Amino acid sequence: MAIQFKIQHEDSSCRARAGSLTVRNQQVSTPVFMPVGTAGAVRAVMPSELKRLGATIILANTYHLSLKPGEGLIQKAGGLHKFMGWEGPILTDSGGYQVFSLPGVKISDEGVSFRYEVDGRAVTLTPERSMEIQSALGADIIMAFDECVSYPCEYEVAKRAVERTTQWAKRCGQSHKNSNQTLFGIIQGSVFPDLRKRSAEQLLDIGFEGFSIGGLSVGERLQKMNVVLEETIPFLPKRYPRYLMGIGLPEDLLNAIERGLDMFDCVIPTRYARSASAFTNRGKIRLIHKEYRRDFYPIEPNCRCYTCQNFTRAYLRHLFVSKEILGAMLTSIHNLYFYQDLMKQSRDAILENRFSRFKQAFLDQYQS
Amino acid sequence: MAIQFKIQHEDSSCRARAGSLTVRNQQVSTPVFMPVGTAGAVRAVMPSELKRLGATIILANTYHLSLKPGEGLIQKAGGLHKFMGWEGPILTDSGGYQVFSLPGVKISDEGVSFRYEVDGRAVTLTPERSMEIQSALGADIIMAFDECVSYPCEYEVAKRAVERTTQWAKRCGQSHKNSNQTLFGIIQGSVFPDLRKRSAEQLLDIGFEGFSIGGLSVGERLQKMNVVLEETIPFLPKRYPRYLMGIGLPEDLLNAIERGLDMFDCVIPTRYARSASAFTNRGKIRLIHKEYRRDFYPIEPNCRCYTCQNFTRAYLRHLFVSKEILGAMLTSIHNLYFYQDLMKQSRDAILENRFSRFKQAFLDQYQS
Repeated sequence: MAIQFKIQHEDSSCRARAGSLTVRNQQVSTPVFMPVGTAGAVRAVMPSELKRLGATIILANTYHLSLKPGEGLIQKAGGLHKFMGWEGPILTDSGGYQVFSLPGVKISDEGVSFRYEVDGRAVTLTPERSMEIQSALGADIIMAFDECVSYPCEYEVAKRAVERTTQWAKRCGQSHKNSNQTLFGIIQGSVFPDLRKRSAEQLLDIGFEGFSIGGLSVGERLQKMNVVLEETIPFLPKRYPRYLMGIGLPEDLLNAIERGLDMFDCVIPTRYARSASAFTNRGKIRLIHKEYRRDFYPIEPNCRCYTCQNFTRAYLRHLFVSKEILGAMLTSIHNLYFYQDLMKQSRDAILENRFSRFKQAFLDQYQS
Repeated sequence: MAIQFKIQHEDSSCRARAGSLTVRNQQVSTPVFMPVGTAGAVRAVMPSELKRLGATIILANTYHLSLKPGEGLIQKAGGLHKFMGWEGPILTDSGGYQVFSLPGVKISDEGVSFRYEVDGRAVTLTPERSMEIQSALGADIIMAFDECVSYPCEYEVAKRAVERTTQWAKRCGQSHKNSNQTLFGIIQGSVFPDLRKRSAEQLLDIGFEGFSIGGLSVGERLQKMNVVLEETIPFLPKRYPRYLMGIGLPEDLLNAIERGLDMFDCVIPTRYARSASAFTNRGKIRLIHKEYRRDFYPIEPNCRCYTCQNFTRAYLRHLFVSKEILGAMLTSIHNLYFYQDLMKQSRDAILENRFSRFKQAFLDQYQS
């Protein structure tokens, strides 16, 4: 078996759990946040810094990598780990989420067709093709190819997407041959409890080593998301890792952890950093604002990251004002560290049965 | 005295010399290359990486920093070292070189007036003002304010610039009060041997702890530059560090080292890196070229830098093609390492009286 997942402790006050995921012979403590390296690079952050700031597993995008530079080239390079200089575990998504947001995409039971925006070439993505690409990329955890619907979505449309997602998940399981890789299923069903239940049960029947809750963060509100989580998670046996795709802000992560989620990924910490938004215990700040011109404190005075240990808000503001790349680099490091630290604090709280209190205390300060 | 300079060895086959500059209680081995941090940041390179790649002293620009964020703010931040998170020695230029290249600049014996391109405000730079700014910035080595002429330049114009540079150098010496800082003089005189001689002699009379050869790299050819160096250096006592400003390509540095220069700065390694040009022992390569698409070797196979130890040309090409910031970051690290390594190899060769042979062997391969 390519991964092992053990729950180390369940918080007595909520559904939150602390676990250990063994991937690539490395330990990944959960809850875990995976920085996103869309094109095989976490934007503006070197792998050595990723390691230093505490990242243990990262995500890369099948859609982008298959088109540029192409999975064949990455395979020839010795796989994605070697290509991008990251020795830790990697998870690749299935390409579905990106594809369904493209204009002019055509969906059939067979798969999905679209034209690549850069050069106009016709591309078809099927469950088999997604497995083939992901096998060539060589990530440690790979995702089944699913149909992701937008929000809001009519019941009948969501229902057909669940049926298709189940059929595609079967085909993914059948064509998944690379024993170094662990395949996760993706539960769909929009905001409809019975569809979520059906999707979960059908995927469990097929059998996967982990389950993702997909189709969220597509426009629904936090409250809706929480309802979906609460309606879906009871159908997932505790022994499997649970992964909430593409989410989110710190408050979203804490909400999901409280409901029993283990794994997360999101572009927010790095994307926000590039536009000068930094996370602090008292909420986000825009470093480019004039009020930081003479602010000689670090982004977050209690933070132990490289950026906060060495640079002030005034310096970072100067970098952004001067359009120096270093501004994005240093803020990305801080934001990712902030997310890693949030996971570590969450885990510590779970181990001491005080997660809900921790969450409330964090939010009280963060949203003040 | 704020700095100490000792010549450790003079090559028996040429004028090249290996020295040790003690600045800020730190040892800087010469010949030395100083990465340029124009706006208080070496573009796309974190201070921790600068240290790791072997940089011992860096340069920052008085002109840029005085206008943005202003020297007052940097002083308030605790000085430039603290502001930019660099604990090693720093040298600041005088602002002259930048100012004289501005459109609509007005020069008088008093100083220089211009309008700041960003907000149109009127700015006057004088020798006294340059010293005041540099004192507030707090660099370890500071430069006298000089008049830099363009190339080609009429004899009479160059002559008047030398006279003015001498007068301004005197005023810099008189207004230089910060005992933590060491003031260097800048020799002008365009390509006219008698003017270079006069400038050197007059600056020696005033007395400085180091001398820079300015007014080069403004359009003249390498051969002209070498003539100037050979006509100027004999008038400089050996005991002072000699600094060639704003130069240059690897071949320029080796030429200057052979003629007895000790210190260099240039934006080339970082600027070239951002446009995907990388230095190798066989010359520059453009990483974005198609021929590197499936090239799974590092930029320079024998290089020990972080980039070459971990990434291939194919990956770097992919980063540049994908417009990932990481491409500029990793190539900047390599190029700066390449320059640092060139200085180290030069020094080792000098210590063994084989610099000219080393230079020829390097150029034979580099220009092949």
